[in-house]
Amino acid sequence: MSASLEIDSEFTIQVLTRFIQIEVTKVGLKNALLGLSGGVDSAAAAFLCARALGPEHVWGVMMPYRTSAPESLEDARKVVQATGIQSREIDITPMVDAYFDPARWSGTEASMVRRGNKMARERMSILYDLSAELSALVVGTSNKTEILLGYGTIYGDMASALNPLGDLYKTQVKQAARALGVPENIIQKQPSADLWQGQTDEGELGVTYAEADKLLYHLIDERASKKELITLGFEEKRVCEVTERVRRMQFKRKPPLIAKVSRRTVDYDFQYARDWGA
Amino acid sequence: MSASLEIDSEFTIQVLTRFIQIEVTKVGLKNALLGLSGGVDSAAAAFLCARALGPEHVWGVMMPYRTSAPESLEDARKVVQATGIQSREIDITPMVDAYFDPARWSGTEASMVRRGNKMARERMSILYDLSAELSALVVGTSNKTEILLGYGTIYGDMASALNPLGDLYKTQVKQAARALGVPENIIQKQPSADLWQGQTDEGELGVTYAEADKLLYHLIDERASKKELITLGFEEKRVCEVTERVRRMQFKRKPPLIAKVSRRTVDYDFQYARDWGA
Repeated sequence: MSASLEIDSEFTIQVLTRFIQIEVTKVGLKNALLGLSGGVDSAAAAFLCARALGPEHVWGVMMPYRTSAPESLEDARKVVQATGIQSREIDITPMVDAYFDPARWSGTEASMVRRGNKMARERMSILYDLSAELSALVVGTSNKTEILLGYGTIYGDMASALNPLGDLYKTQVKQAARALGVPENIIQKQPSADLWQGQTDEGELGVTYAEADKLLYHLIDERASKKELITLGFEEKRVCEVTERVRRMQFKRKPPLIAKVSRRTVDYDFQYARDWGA
Repeated sequence: MSASLEIDSEFTIQVLTRFIQIEVTKVGLKNALLGLSGGVDSAAAAFLCARALGPEHVWGVMMPYRTSAPESLEDARKVVQATGIQSREIDITPMVDAYFDPARWSGTEASMVRRGNKMARERMSILYDLSAELSALVVGTSNKTEILLGYGTIYGDMASALNPLGDLYKTQVKQAARALGVPENIIQKQPSADLWQGQTDEGELGVTYAEADKLLYHLIDERASKKELITLGFEEKRVCEVTERVRRMQFKRKPPLIAKVSRRTVDYDFQYARDWGA
């Protein structure tokens, strides 16, 4: 790992813990909930929430599909045990299979990617439903690498009320996870969206997190030019691919694009209510 | 209606048509799809899309639930006929009822609002799935009144790729709808989310669109102060309610809040790639 990706884990954890506390209490709530996939990101987020709010105020929701790896559920349960948070298990198979039911399915057969996106949105939908039941904010677990590369489902796993990990690259989440006490096998296992057997993030992205994080750190945080990235030792082809991907995935990081026709438009010149006096 | 809410319908329609054309072709696509509820907003959006892209490139998707009013579906079909767009009908009952199945339901009984939000997110999820099948962008149909008052489901009906109506108040959408040729009964019927029998927008909001639109126009577009609004004839109580609601619903108009811990953070100081040279 490049030295520049090193974080001060203890300080970062303090900032993120305080962030969760402030944002949850600011809206008059005490509770948070999040999906637990068994991966390192949701594990780290669960540990942070437990520290910030107390484990009795945090719900980890496990939402397996019939093809999900059993080890994913085991690891998620391990996080519940280690943190002492509350938990729920909801099998998403009935809802997802009701949609893709061959008997009612008139469209072309759906690809694995489409099935995976439907699952991700079902999980978001369940989290938001439970947030009403539990008076809890939905905590997101997308990291900076995923958000920049658009490796996630818009209005699915990328949707949340607040995201404590969104400014940490994947390799930085692992550093924080270690300092938080996330079980080591969860930190070390091959990252996967677990949408189909044998799927791995790095296989799908076509680049390792170690390389992607280094490149993104220089490109985004350090504002390096293409020429500088090549001088730093990155292949030109890789630089172009990653840069183009960040650009193309911008839509996943923005609210819906509104056609401006008035004097003051949501998300352009109406952002917030700073100018509302008496 | 206050004179200030009058729009130049023909000019507005031209701008919005061009907006749809540009945004769809910009990403290399030719098609759009949208949910057709039978209401005036989705009807107006369908007419705009048909003008912008040609009806053969537009899909109207009807997604009734078992409790939806039959007239809603009839009116949606009328829009398909009048515009000549393609269509799909998908009953969301199996997916929604699979989730709320009493046999697997361990939580407290879900309120109508929770059920309605689950339905809205199921519809979003279906539109995004079909967008992959049809190579089409998801067109949103939330109007400016709904967006400002947060009268809609976050990551449900408020989610889309682009929204041609988001800068038009409800009463302005009606003006545009009339100029577009939307059937008169759709323009005149009582607006309703049709989540339960007898539900009306105005009943739920506790204010008529005519009044809300006028107040919001002065508050947002004209930047009127509370004192000025009262001088204009609005009740103080109403002014406070609406102002507070716009403020409280800000989260529905923003992407997830990311905790800033690095030099350059998504949605704060990393917005787009203007500074990427060679």
